[in-house]
Amino acid sequence: MIKKIDHIGIAVKSIEEALIFYESLGLKMAHTEAELEQRVVVAFMPAGESEVELVEPIEEDGPVARFLQRRGEGLHHICFEVIDIHKLLARLKETGVELIDGEPRIGTGGKKIAFIHPQEAHGVLIELYEKVPDEKVPPLVDLEALRERLRLQSEAARAGLEEFISALQKRGENRKE
Amino acid sequence: MIKKIDHIGIAVKSIEEALIFYESLGLKMAHTEAELEQRVVVAFMPAGESEVELVEPIEEDGPVARFLQRRGEGLHHICFEVIDIHKLLARLKETGVELIDGEPRIGTGGKKIAFIHPQEAHGVLIELYEKVPDEKVPPLVDLEALRERLRLQSEAARAGLEEFISALQKRGENRKE
Repeated sequence: MIKKIDHIGIAVKSIEEALIFYESLGLKMAHTEAELEQRVVVAFMPAGESEVELVEPIEEDGPVARFLQRRGEGLHHICFEVIDIHKLLARLKETGVELIDGEPRIGTGGKKIAFIHPQEAHGVLIELYEKVPDEKVPPLVDLEALRERLRLQSEAARAGLEEFISALQKRGENRKE
Repeated sequence: MIKKIDHIGIAVKSIEEALIFYESLGLKMAHTEAELEQRVVVAFMPAGESEVELVEPIEEDGPVARFLQRRGEGLHHICFEVIDIHKLLARLKETGVELIDGEPRIGTGGKKIAFIHPQEAHGVLIELYEKVPDEKVPPLVDLEALRERLRLQSEAARAGLEEFISALQKRGENRKE
Protein backbone atom coordinates (compact mmCIF):
# COMPACT_ATOMS: atom_id res chain seq x y z
CA MET A 1 0.00 0.00 0.00
CA ILE A 2 3.01 2.30 0.54
CA LYS A 3 4.45 3.22 -2.86
CA LYS A 4 7.51 5.23 -1.85
CA ILE A 5 8.90 7.97 0.39
CA ASP A 6 7.41 11.06 -1.26
CA HIS A 7 9.43 13.56 0.73
CA ILE A 8 11.28 14.29 3.97
CA GLY A 9 10.39 17.60 5.61
CA ILE A 10 13.15 19.62 7.31
CA ALA A 11 12.18 22.59 9.49
CA VAL A 12 14.50 25.57 8.88
CA LYS A 13 14.59 29.23 9.92
CA SER A 14 15.42 30.47 6.41
CA ILE A 15 15.11 28.48 3.18
CA GLU A 16 17.72 30.65 1.45
CA GLU A 17 20.29 30.00 4.20
CA ALA A 18 19.60 26.25 4.26
CA LEU A 19 19.85 26.14 0.44
CA ILE A 20 23.51 27.20 0.62
CA PHE A 21 24.33 23.91 2.37
CA TYR A 22 21.90 21.66 0.48
CA GLU A 23 23.06 22.98 -2.90
CA SER A 24 26.68 22.24 -1.94
CA LEU A 25 25.44 18.68 -1.35
CA GLY A 26 24.22 18.60 -4.97
CA LEU A 27 20.47 19.16 -4.45
CA LYS A 28 18.54 21.76 -6.44
CA MET A 29 15.33 23.62 -5.64
CA ALA A 30 12.67 22.51 -8.17
CA HIS A 31 9.40 23.97 -6.87
CA THR A 32 8.05 26.12 -4.06
CA GLU A 33 4.72 26.47 -2.29
CA ALA A 34 2.95 28.53 0.36
CA GLU A 35 0.70 26.71 2.84
CA LEU A 36 -1.76 29.03 4.51
CA GLU A 37 -3.04 26.50 7.05
CA GLN A 38 0.46 25.78 8.39
CA ARG A 39 1.70 29.37 7.82
CA VAL A 40 4.82 28.11 6.04
CA VAL A 41 6.64 28.50 2.74
CA VAL A 42 8.29 25.34 1.43
CA ALA A 43 10.90 24.46 -1.20
CA PHE A 44 11.26 20.99 -2.73
CA MET A 45 14.56 19.48 -3.93
CA PRO A 46 14.33 16.17 -5.87
CA ALA A 47 16.51 13.21 -4.76
CA GLY A 48 15.78 10.14 -6.90
CA GLU A 49 12.06 9.36 -6.82
CA SER A 50 11.71 11.33 -3.56
CA GLU A 51 12.21 14.96 -2.53
CA VAL A 52 13.69 16.89 0.37
CA GLU A 53 11.34 19.65 1.56
CA LEU A 54 12.62 22.71 3.39
CA VAL A 55 9.86 24.16 5.60
CA GLU A 56 10.09 27.76 6.85
CA PRO A 57 7.43 29.34 9.10
CA ILE A 58 6.35 32.92 8.34
CA GLU A 59 4.74 33.52 11.76
CA GLU A 60 5.85 32.85 15.32
CA ASP A 61 2.72 31.05 16.47
CA GLY A 62 2.37 28.28 13.88
CA PRO A 63 3.14 24.58 14.51
CA VAL A 64 6.47 24.63 12.63
CA ALA A 65 7.54 27.84 14.39
CA ARG A 66 6.82 26.13 17.73
CA PHE A 67 8.79 23.05 16.59
CA LEU A 68 11.77 25.34 15.84
CA GLN A 69 11.49 27.07 19.21
CA ARG A 70 11.30 23.73 21.05
CA ARG A 71 13.76 21.56 19.12
CA GLY A 72 15.66 23.80 16.71
CA GLU A 73 16.15 23.16 13.01
CA GLY A 74 16.04 19.53 11.88
CA LEU A 75 14.07 16.58 10.52
CA HIS A 76 10.38 17.41 10.90
CA HIS A 77 8.23 14.79 9.12
CA ILE A 78 8.24 11.96 6.60
CA CYS A 79 5.65 11.71 3.83
CA PHE A 80 4.78 8.39 2.21
CA GLU A 81 2.95 8.18 -1.10
CA VAL A 82 0.27 5.51 -0.71
CA ILE A 83 -1.98 3.71 -3.19
CA ASP A 84 -5.35 3.99 -1.41
CA ILE A 85 -5.38 6.51 1.43
CA HIS A 86 -9.01 5.84 2.46
CA LYS A 87 -8.34 2.11 2.81
CA LEU A 88 -5.10 2.69 4.75
CA LEU A 89 -6.74 5.18 7.14
CA ALA A 90 -9.59 2.71 7.73
CA ARG A 91 -7.11 -0.08 8.49
CA LEU A 92 -5.10 2.12 10.87
CA LYS A 93 -8.30 3.10 12.70
CA GLU A 94 -9.22 -0.59 13.01
CA THR A 95 -5.86 -1.35 14.65
CA GLY A 96 -6.50 1.49 17.13
CA VAL A 97 -4.09 4.09 15.71
CA GLU A 98 -5.14 7.63 16.59
CA LEU A 99 -5.15 9.86 13.50
CA ILE A 100 -4.86 13.64 13.20
CA ASP A 101 -7.00 13.34 10.05
CA GLY A 102 -9.55 10.54 10.11
CA GLU A 103 -10.48 11.44 6.55
CA PRO A 104 -7.99 12.84 4.01
CA ARG A 105 -7.95 16.59 3.45
CA ILE A 106 -7.28 18.16 0.07
CA GLY A 107 -3.80 19.67 -0.24
CA THR A 108 -2.08 21.84 -2.85
CA GLY A 109 -2.74 20.69 -6.42
CA GLY A 110 -5.77 18.62 -5.33
CA LYS A 111 -3.80 15.82 -3.65
CA LYS A 112 -5.27 13.87 -0.72
CA ILE A 113 -3.25 14.02 2.51
CA ALA A 114 -3.60 12.87 6.14
CA PHE A 115 -1.33 13.12 9.16
CA ILE A 116 -0.61 10.54 11.88
CA HIS A 117 0.28 11.84 15.33
CA PRO A 118 3.93 11.29 16.44
CA GLN A 119 2.68 9.61 19.62
CA GLU A 120 1.25 6.80 17.49
CA ALA A 121 4.28 6.49 15.22
CA HIS A 122 7.12 6.27 17.78
CA GLY A 123 7.92 9.97 17.72
CA VAL A 124 7.62 10.47 13.96
CA LEU A 125 5.16 12.89 12.37
CA ILE A 126 3.92 10.92 9.34
CA GLU A 127 2.12 12.39 6.35
CA LEU A 128 0.25 10.04 4.02
CA TYR A 129 -0.42 11.23 0.51
CA GLU A 130 -2.37 9.85 -2.41
CA LYS A 131 -1.71 11.28 -5.85
CA VAL A 132 -4.79 12.27 -7.84
CA PRO A 133 -4.83 11.81 -11.65
CA ASP A 134 -5.16 15.52 -12.55
CA GLU A 135 -2.78 16.73 -9.83
CA LYS A 136 -0.97 19.94 -10.70
CA VAL A 137 2.73 20.25 -9.88
CA PRO A 138 3.25 23.69 -8.33
CA PRO A 139 5.76 25.90 -10.17
CA LEU A 140 9.00 27.41 -8.88
CA VAL A 141 7.81 30.75 -7.49
CA ASP A 142 10.11 33.36 -5.97
CA LEU A 143 10.22 32.74 -2.19
CA GLU A 144 9.86 36.40 -1.21
CA ALA A 145 6.75 36.73 -3.41
CA LEU A 146 5.30 33.60 -1.72
CA ARG A 147 6.03 34.97 1.76
CA GLU A 148 4.40 38.29 0.92
CA ARG A 149 1.28 36.57 -0.50
CA LEU A 150 1.07 34.32 2.55
CA ARG A 151 1.38 37.26 4.97
CA LEU A 152 -1.47 39.06 3.20
CA GLN A 153 -3.63 35.89 3.21
CA SER A 154 -2.82 35.32 6.85
CA GLU A 155 -3.78 38.89 7.78
CA ALA A 156 -7.02 38.55 5.83
CA ALA A 157 -7.78 35.26 7.61
CA ARG A 158 -7.13 36.86 10.99
CA ALA A 159 -9.32 39.83 10.04
CA GLY A 160 -12.08 37.38 9.10
CA LEU A 161 -11.74 35.65 12.46
CA GLU A 162 -11.80 38.97 14.27
CA GLU A 163 -15.02 39.95 12.50
CA PHE A 164 -16.48 36.56 13.45
CA ILE A 165 -15.44 36.97 17.10
CA SER A 166 -16.79 40.52 17.30
CA ALA A 167 -20.08 39.30 15.74
CA LEU A 168 -20.30 36.59 18.44
CA GLN A 169 -19.56 39.14 21.17
CA LYS A 170 -22.27 41.47 19.85
CA ARG A 171 -24.74 38.57 19.82
CA GLY A 172 -23.80 37.85 23.46
CA GLU A 173 -24.29 41.50 24.39
CA ASN A 174 -27.67 41.59 22.64
CA ARG A 175 -28.80 38.55 24.66
CA LYS A 176 -27.85 40.24 27.93
CA GLU A 177 -30.02 43.23 27.13
CA MET B 1 25.87 13.48 -7.42
CA ILE B 2 23.02 12.46 -5.10
CA LYS B 3 21.33 9.38 -6.53
CA LYS B 4 18.45 8.90 -4.09
CA ILE B 5 17.40 8.80 -0.45
CA ASP B 6 18.85 5.45 0.59
CA HIS B 7 17.11 5.33 3.97
CA ILE B 8 15.61 7.32 6.83
CA GLY B 9 16.78 6.29 10.30
CA ILE B 10 14.27 6.30 13.18
CA ALA B 11 15.56 5.88 16.74
CA VAL B 12 13.32 3.54 18.76
CA LYS B 13 13.46 1.86 22.16
CA SER B 14 12.36 -1.52 20.83
CA ILE B 15 12.30 -2.61 17.19
CA GLU B 16 9.62 -5.24 17.89
CA GLU B 17 7.30 -2.65 19.47
CA ALA B 18 7.84 -0.13 16.67
CA LEU B 19 7.23 -2.87 14.08
CA ILE B 20 3.65 -3.30 15.32
CA PHE B 21 2.86 0.23 14.11
CA TYR B 22 5.01 0.23 10.96
CA GLU B 23 3.60 -3.11 9.81
CA SER B 24 0.07 -1.74 10.21
CA LEU B 25 1.21 1.02 7.85
CA GLY B 26 2.08 -1.67 5.28
CA LEU B 27 5.88 -1.81 5.69
CA LYS B 28 7.73 -5.11 6.12
CA MET B 29 11.09 -5.88 7.74
CA ALA B 30 13.44 -7.13 4.99
CA HIS B 31 16.88 -7.28 6.63
CA THR B 32 18.56 -6.68 9.97
CA GLU B 33 22.05 -5.75 11.10
CA ALA B 34 24.13 -5.25 14.24
CA GLU B 35 26.52 -2.29 14.31
CA LEU B 36 29.21 -2.71 16.95
CA GLU B 37 30.64 0.81 16.64
CA GLN B 38 27.24 2.44 17.30
CA ARG B 39 26.09 -0.32 19.72
CA VAL B 40 22.77 -0.68 17.87
CA VAL B 41 20.68 -3.30 16.14
CA VAL B 42 18.80 -2.09 13.07
CA ALA B 43 15.92 -3.34 10.92
CA PHE B 44 15.28 -2.14 7.36
CA MET B 45 11.83 -1.87 5.73
CA PRO B 46 11.73 -1.10 1.97
CA ALA B 47 9.55 1.79 0.71
CA GLY B 48 9.96 2.22 -3.05
CA GLU B 49 13.64 2.66 -3.91
CA SER B 50 14.36 3.74 -0.31
CA GLU B 51 14.11 2.10 3.10
CA VAL B 52 12.98 3.01 6.59
CA GLU B 53 15.54 1.95 9.21
CA LEU B 54 14.56 1.31 12.82
CA VAL B 55 17.57 1.85 15.10
CA GLU B 56 17.59 0.37 18.63
CA PRO B 57 20.51 0.88 21.05
CA ILE B 58 21.65 -2.12 23.12
CA GLU B 59 23.58 -0.06 25.69
CA GLU B 60 22.79 3.09 27.63
CA ASP B 61 25.94 5.01 26.78
CA GLY B 62 25.95 4.92 22.97
CA PRO B 63 25.10 7.89 20.71
CA VAL B 64 21.61 6.61 19.81
CA ALA B 65 20.83 5.81 23.47
CA ARG B 66 21.79 9.41 24.36
CA PHE B 67 19.60 10.70 21.48
CA LEU B 68 16.65 8.75 22.97
CA GLN B 69 17.32 10.08 26.48
CA ARG B 70 17.53 13.67 25.18
CA ARG B 71 14.83 13.80 22.52
CA GLY B 72 12.81 10.58 22.77
CA GLU B 73 11.95 8.31 19.86
CA GLY B 74 11.80 9.87 16.40
CA LEU B 75 13.53 10.76 13.14
CA HIS B 76 17.28 10.34 13.67
CA HIS B 77 19.14 10.68 10.35
CA ILE B 78 18.79 10.70 6.58
CA CYS B 79 21.09 8.72 4.31
CA PHE B 80 21.67 9.70 0.68
CA GLU B 81 23.17 7.31 -1.83
CA VAL B 82 25.77 9.27 -3.81
CA ILE B 83 27.71 8.53 -7.00
CA ASP B 84 31.24 9.52 -5.92
CA ILE B 85 31.62 9.96 -2.16
CA HIS B 86 35.31 11.03 -2.32
CA LYS B 87 34.52 13.81 -4.79
CA LEU B 88 31.51 14.99 -2.78
CA LEU B 89 33.46 15.04 0.52
CA ALA B 90 36.24 17.01 -1.18
CA ARG B 91 33.72 19.55 -2.52
CA LEU B 92 32.04 19.92 0.87
CA LYS B 93 35.44 20.49 2.52
CA GLU B 94 36.22 23.14 -0.11
CA THR B 95 33.02 25.02 0.73
CA GLY B 96 33.97 24.94 4.43
CA VAL B 97 31.56 22.23 5.64
CA GLU B 98 32.85 20.47 8.77
CA LEU B 99 32.65 16.70 8.36
CA ILE B 100 32.51 13.96 10.99
CA ASP B 101 34.32 11.74 8.49
CA GLY B 102 36.75 13.55 6.21
CA GLU B 103 37.39 10.26 4.43
CA PRO B 104 34.73 7.56 4.00
CA ARG B 105 34.79 4.64 6.42
CA ILE B 106 33.89 1.10 5.40
CA GLY B 107 30.46 -0.01 6.63
CA THR B 108 28.61 -3.35 6.65
CA GLY B 109 28.92 -5.24 3.36
CA GLY B 110 31.94 -3.16 2.29
CA LYS B 111 30.00 0.03 1.52
CA LYS B 112 31.65 3.46 1.89
CA ILE B 113 29.94 5.84 4.32
CA ALA B 114 30.56 9.27 5.84
CA PHE B 115 28.58 11.45 8.25
CA ILE B 116 28.02 15.21 8.20
CA HIS B 117 27.49 16.94 11.56
CA PRO B 118 23.95 18.28 12.19
CA GLN B 119 25.42 21.72 12.98
CA GLU B 120 26.53 21.96 9.33
CA ALA B 121 23.28 20.61 7.87
CA HIS B 122 20.68 22.77 9.67
CA GLY B 123 20.04 20.27 12.46
CA VAL B 124 20.01 17.15 10.29
CA LEU B 125 22.42 14.24 10.81
CA ILE B 126 23.30 13.27 7.22
CA GLU B 127 24.87 10.00 6.16
CA LEU B 128 26.42 9.76 2.71
CA TYR B 129 26.79 6.33 1.19
CA GLU B 130 28.42 4.99 -1.96
CA LYS B 131 27.52 1.50 -3.10
CA VAL B 132 30.46 -0.75 -3.98
CA PRO B 133 30.16 -3.26 -6.87
CA ASP B 134 30.54 -6.42 -4.75
CA GLU B 135 28.47 -5.13 -1.83
CA LYS B 136 26.69 -7.87 0.16
CA VAL B 137 23.10 -7.30 1.27
CA PRO B 138 22.87 -8.41 4.89
CA PRO B 139 20.29 -11.17 5.54
CA LEU B 140 17.24 -11.09 7.81
CA VAL B 141 18.69 -12.35 11.09
CA ASP B 142 16.64 -12.88 14.25
CA LEU B 143 16.83 -9.66 16.31
CA GLU B 144 17.42 -11.40 19.65
CA ALA B 145 20.34 -13.37 18.15
CA LEU B 146 21.81 -10.09 16.83
CA ARG B 147 21.45 -8.38 20.21
CA GLU B 148 23.13 -11.32 21.97
CA ARG B 149 26.02 -11.35 19.48
CA LEU B 150 26.42 -7.58 19.81
CA ARG B 151 26.44 -7.74 23.62
CA LEU B 152 29.20 -10.40 23.53
CA GLN B 153 31.23 -8.35 21.00
CA SER B 154 30.72 -5.23 23.10
CA GLU B 155 31.88 -7.00 26.27
CA ALA B 156 34.92 -8.35 24.44
CA ALA B 157 35.72 -4.86 23.17
CA ARG B 158 35.40 -3.46 26.67
CA ALA B 159 37.55 -6.31 28.05
CA GLY B 160 40.20 -5.43 25.45
CA LEU B 161 40.08 -1.83 26.58
CA GLU B 162 40.26 -2.88 30.23
CA GLU B 163 43.35 -5.01 29.52
CA PHE B 164 44.87 -2.03 27.70
CA ILE B 165 44.09 0.32 30.60
CA SER B 166 45.43 -2.12 33.22
CA ALA B 167 48.61 -2.56 31.11
CA LEU B 168 49.04 1.26 31.06
CA GLN B 169 48.46 1.44 34.84
CA LYS B 170 51.05 -1.31 35.46
CA ARG B 171 53.53 0.55 33.30
CA GLY B 172 52.88 3.69 35.37
CA GLU B 173 53.40 1.72 38.60
CA ASN B 174 56.64 0.24 37.31
CA ARG B 175 57.91 3.74 36.53
CA LYS B 176 57.20 4.87 40.08
CA GLU B 177 59.28 2.06 41.54
